[in-house]
Amino acid sequence: MNELEEITVFAPATVANVACGFDVLGFALSVPGDTIYVKKNDLNTLFISKINGAPDLSLAPENNVVGVAIQALLNELNSKQGFDIEVTKGVKPGSGIGSSAASSAGAVWAVNQLLNANFSETDLVRFAMEGERLASGAAHADNVAPAIMGGFTLVRSYEPLDIVKLNTPQDLHCTIIHPQIEVKTSDARSVLRTGISLKKAIIQWGNVGGLVAGLFLEDYKLIGRSLQDVVIEPIRSELIPGFDNVKRAALNAGALGCSISGSGPSIFALSKGVEQAEKVRIAMSQVYHQIGIEYLTYVSAVSKSGVSIL
Amino acid sequence: MNELEEITVFAPATVANVACGFDVLGFALSVPGDTIYVKKNDLNTLFISKINGAPDLSLAPENNVVGVAIQALLNELNSKQGFDIEVTKGVKPGSGIGSSAASSAGAVWAVNQLLNANFSETDLVRFAMEGERLASGAAHADNVAPAIMGGFTLVRSYEPLDIVKLNTPQDLHCTIIHPQIEVKTSDARSVLRTGISLKKAIIQWGNVGGLVAGLFLEDYKLIGRSLQDVVIEPIRSELIPGFDNVKRAALNAGALGCSISGSGPSIFALSKGVEQAEKVRIAMSQVYHQIGIEYLTYVSAVSKSGVSIL
Repeated sequence: MNELEEITVFAPATVANVACGFDVLGFALSVPGDTIYVKKNDLNTLFISKINGAPDLSLAPENNVVGVAIQALLNELNSKQGFDIEVTKGVKPGSGIGSSAASSAGAVWAVNQLLNANFSETDLVRFAMEGERLASGAAHADNVAPAIMGGFTLVRSYEPLDIVKLNTPQDLHCTIIHPQIEVKTSDARSVLRTGISLKKAIIQWGNVGGLVAGLFLEDYKLIGRSLQDVVIEPIRSELIPGFDNVKRAALNAGALGCSISGSGPSIFALSKGVEQAEKVRIAMSQVYHQIGIEYLTYVSAVSKSGVSIL
Repeated sequence: MNELEEITVFAPATVANVACGFDVLGFALSVPGDTIYVKKNDLNTLFISKINGAPDLSLAPENNVVGVAIQALLNELNSKQGFDIEVTKGVKPGSGIGSSAASSAGAVWAVNQLLNANFSETDLVRFAMEGERLASGAAHADNVAPAIMGGFTLVRSYEPLDIVKLNTPQDLHCTIIHPQIEVKTSDARSVLRTGISLKKAIIQWGNVGGLVAGLFLEDYKLIGRSLQDVVIEPIRSELIPGFDNVKRAALNAGALGCSISGSGPSIFALSKGVEQAEKVRIAMSQVYHQIGIEYLTYVSAVSKSGVSIL
């Protein structure tokens, strides 16, 4: 089989945690996403030539999630193959919608294609997690899994890594609002407590079970009732100005549920249908407009596709 | 519509918690079960004439789960209707397979039929939970829900009560071994800690999500991988002699998973197919035989039926 010499892929933004599923649940969006161009070179080295749209990111492969993730894959193959890489960031770093995950996932997916390496999706998640470790200090999989596999994913277990692709109802749409403030993932993790009450844990796993059941049953109301987070959101939402008002506006406008995307500051809402998701976008936007915080918004289907060839 | 004057129902034993789903997951067995005969009387009073097979249980309706559960239903109807009730316990009190739940569930289900009251299954669960409150001090729903609704159930939320019927794969069979020792539900609850680490909570809700997904996907291996409890089993298993050996024997014999049924002392294992479940029964039995503890065993399909008319 002929090997490709170069490839350009699209790697989607993702929403991790999804209210009740801290560190285990995530889903892929259809927009925004990163575009990653990868070409073999004969220099036995990774060369990141350019990162469009994120001038602050390091081009040194050992300090860039793309370089680290690709290197993890190459190490497993005992390969010294070199690549030239150019990234165009559609997912802004620090947005909370899986910016580092999109780049890491796209990069390893592209290299897997170029080398005909036939790694499983779970293997690719494992390599991309090394990018996450560099970006946030924790090798979490709840963004890279949906970025690679598409749709809703569950990290059933980290040791061993066990990722389950869930059902993704057709009409499920996501509204994202990204207030232009900075919350670093590492800071967002440091505010969390290391212990929780058994009572809250039970509420949380009831909701995880409810959300997974709702996805398979395509029961939008059950999905909505399950989008509750009694553990993380009450703490992290303190870092996001206007969070309570944005959430209330989204629910009042008819969203199924609303919570923090990943470690924030982006806030996501899920809705049945794109029209409903657009209404929710307007309602959420009005809150930040009124309190004078700059913001970006996206409306997207929950995408059944992960990384794809452009 | 003519009202029935009397009815006899079968109410199944149930397995609650199901490893990862403390207080939220449960499933119904096809055997054993309680048989409950209920007949209207004209005395405006609940009269429990007999409880076969459990001579220690009180016949006073205010001290018996059957009386308390029926009274909760009658209170909601503002009804003073009286009933004569006779219970034959197939599910031994203190076994950990939902003995009080079977009686409570069967009783309210029967009365709902006799009065044509048209309560929803969730309402019936709510009434039967009052029996659970009497029996154990906590109005948990993870046994009464599957006893009434059949199959696998999830208590998504207690406040408000929200119960989800999950998919139940056809080939899923359960082996129960009941060592003849006493562990009171109230004691089994008192050994639990009120807090857990966030790390363990994440492992637990990953497994809850995995088990629910496995049930819908009918992925028996995923079901097996998800049958893990890092929160409750390590503590409660100390109360059950031989637990670790019984569990190891079940898994070595091919069970998908094995854990404590409810608050114990019964231990359950799930298997694919009845023949496999019979092999597991033999393996588990050998352990108790060797250490000289008396035991009962059951092998049953995970039953899609809850309470039914006999």
